[in-house]
Amino acid sequence: MNKNTSVTKMAQAAKFASRQLAMVATAEKNRALRLMAKMLLAEKDFLVRENQKDIQAGEKAGLSRAMIDRLLLNDKRIQSMADCLLDTAGLADPVDEVIEKFTRPNGLVISKVRTPIGVIGIIFESRPNVTSDCVGLCLKSGNACILKGGKEAAYSNKAIFSLLRKALAETRISEDSIQLIESADRASVEELLKLNAYVDLIVPRGGEGLIRFVAEHSTIPVVKHYKGVCHTYVSEYADLNKAHKICFNAKVQRPGVCNAMETMLVHRDVAVRFLPGMIRDLKEAGVEIRGCPLTRKIVKAGVKAAKESDWPEEYLDLILAVKVVDSLQDAIDHINKYGSGHSDAIVTDSRKEAAQFFKAVDSACVYANASTRFTDGYEFGFGAEIGISTDKLHARGPMGLRELTTYKFVIQGKGQVRQ
Amino acid sequence: MNKNTSVTKMAQAAKFASRQLAMVATAEKNRALRLMAKMLLAEKDFLVRENQKDIQAGEKAGLSRAMIDRLLLNDKRIQSMADCLLDTAGLADPVDEVIEKFTRPNGLVISKVRTPIGVIGIIFESRPNVTSDCVGLCLKSGNACILKGGKEAAYSNKAIFSLLRKALAETRISEDSIQLIESADRASVEELLKLNAYVDLIVPRGGEGLIRFVAEHSTIPVVKHYKGVCHTYVSEYADLNKAHKICFNAKVQRPGVCNAMETMLVHRDVAVRFLPGMIRDLKEAGVEIRGCPLTRKIVKAGVKAAKESDWPEEYLDLILAVKVVDSLQDAIDHINKYGSGHSDAIVTDSRKEAAQFFKAVDSACVYANASTRFTDGYEFGFGAEIGISTDKLHARGPMGLRELTTYKFVIQGKGQVRQ
Repeated sequence: MNKNTSVTKMAQAAKFASRQLAMVATAEKNRALRLMAKMLLAEKDFLVRENQKDIQAGEKAGLSRAMIDRLLLNDKRIQSMADCLLDTAGLADPVDEVIEKFTRPNGLVISKVRTPIGVIGIIFESRPNVTSDCVGLCLKSGNACILKGGKEAAYSNKAIFSLLRKALAETRISEDSIQLIESADRASVEELLKLNAYVDLIVPRGGEGLIRFVAEHSTIPVVKHYKGVCHTYVSEYADLNKAHKICFNAKVQRPGVCNAMETMLVHRDVAVRFLPGMIRDLKEAGVEIRGCPLTRKIVKAGVKAAKESDWPEEYLDLILAVKVVDSLQDAIDHINKYGSGHSDAIVTDSRKEAAQFFKAVDSACVYANASTRFTDGYEFGFGAEIGISTDKLHARGPMGLRELTTYKFVIQGKGQVRQ
Repeated sequence: MNKNTSVTKMAQAAKFASRQLAMVATAEKNRALRLMAKMLLAEKDFLVRENQKDIQAGEKAGLSRAMIDRLLLNDKRIQSMADCLLDTAGLADPVDEVIEKFTRPNGLVISKVRTPIGVIGIIFESRPNVTSDCVGLCLKSGNACILKGGKEAAYSNKAIFSLLRKALAETRISEDSIQLIESADRASVEELLKLNAYVDLIVPRGGEGLIRFVAEHSTIPVVKHYKGVCHTYVSEYADLNKAHKICFNAKVQRPGVCNAMETMLVHRDVAVRFLPGMIRDLKEAGVEIRGCPLTRKIVKAGVKAAKESDWPEEYLDLILAVKVVDSLQDAIDHINKYGSGHSDAIVTDSRKEAAQFFKAVDSACVYANASTRFTDGYEFGFGAEIGISTDKLHARGPMGLRELTTYKFVIQGKGQVRQ
């Protein structure tokens, strides 16, 4: 049996298992999640040992310290993997939720009922905890899943996966409900992406390169975000102290993530009051500033000139583009032109202005007077997230259990026929 | 300017207009819809005249009577196009609907708010009323649209569209909100399908060939159904009188549509009582029966042998495949294997059995004790429909105004920053 055939067989097995999984009671799914958590904790030593093989290979291959750190499993991280499974067990089961119910004049009772999607393919990089997090979310939402992790975490992913399957064997849920593609070659990913007969949704998690590859090669619907070019607009009606704190947090608290601010827009009427102190503090925190001509006129020293290519850039680093704008409309136009539709904020004390911003900015999350760093399933209260979508179809913004479901219409009749 | 450039320019103009349209008040959108209806009625003679050019070309080209009938515009049909626009004006505006609202422990108030998707491309065949129906639905849901009709209705579509644009000119809504691709060549469709920078969703309406072409060539998300292979399962717990009426209606009332029954499944315990009378009446109505071996044993004369290729077939005609099955599970397995995920029914007086069928059958619409012919936006009370989806992402089943929307998260803060 060659590798390619095995991916197709996996997908067929997952599809078959998904039909059963869709029928499993909430209590049994929760029992499986708790058994999985228990198994991970019981086999900590095994996990650490297998993880060390990845770490050693990574060091040999010259991975950066940051990459090695992302790969590492230790007691604390294994505990938090187990906690995520237990948290997921504690969340409400979305399956069978009646979204709407109405009766037609002819007496037909129509219910719109939430159901699992079927089989979810998840393609991810480096961090091995994604294996158990995603298995937990898919299982709870009644979906079979097929995982394909990065080759740098191959030993760790395989070890985690083997324990999760072992836990499933103690339940009434088919072990085929969860699948791991172990092959490291891209051909197996390409094969998976064409299996639209068996796989219903692909969620890529990782860098923009991976996501573009997946989106371009998949015949299966993909829900994704490429990048987060997030803006904060400081209006002339802003409380400038709040604006200062919000912008500082959005840029500095964790610059390497998709919901961090990349461009700050400031209304010209407050630029002279706001920018000097703001830029001074950002620079003290190590932030490189790239400003428009007016910004550089107001803050004369230590501001590089922003180029056109800075505006659509996702730095994921301590770098900030700054632009002075003439109006709310200019800020909105800039965001809709250069943004990535992820998370954008206005700081203003005008309700009218905030309402205008909310309606006109075409992004998954629009904020007034808060840091864009809150765009996150956990912060939104979804418990866990499978990812963040900047697509407009199916799901937008942080995706939790509900976003792993579809619905069907259930129609109860008494013999009605169409006239 | 060549044709290709003009499709791209249209899409750019539509994208620009969609930003404004998203902000337009409900009353103004309704006014536009009513003006459009008025304009169609006022220019009936013009419409009939232009339509006659299509009819004459169609007759010359040897189109079937059925095709010519689908093309035809007359006073009654123009009235019903106007009525559809007026009905759409009367429907609730989905835009700005707050789907959920919750407050986080840190005081952030998060609302999930319905918004337009942006620009919708609709690719359709023959019936010219689709032009005004789709413009109405897109406009009401705040979306710009780009239409591409079939070349057989070119004069009619152009005439209808010109009146709709003329009506828009009398409102505050940009005329660029609605676009019609007049070019008849496939290259213009292929170009449209690659404009994912400007177009957010493609809805193909027509035969399976058209829909497969669109799905295969589009880099834009497509919501669609290929076909409707609908089943009715007559259980051993069925009221056989009801079953008779339901099956007859589902097959005979309008056989050429996607929600008509194509396969009837019957439990073996009632087959001898049910099949002879049922098949006799179907045959009297002109239905050709293709049965499994057991069916042909029970009804000895005039039942052709069903082949394996009959089970996944969408006849769209007075032909019915019939199979005797051993159990509910067999019926479910048959439907999930051969069905198209459109609409499937069980006839049973057992609530338990109906519940099992509802949960296990993986279709957009699952019925108990009613004809599958009810799968239709109008019958469901959505007022109008843009189509029916057998996809699982975004929308499933009949798609109305809500299914032409996405959502955004609106987060109202008081200066919150992330810890």
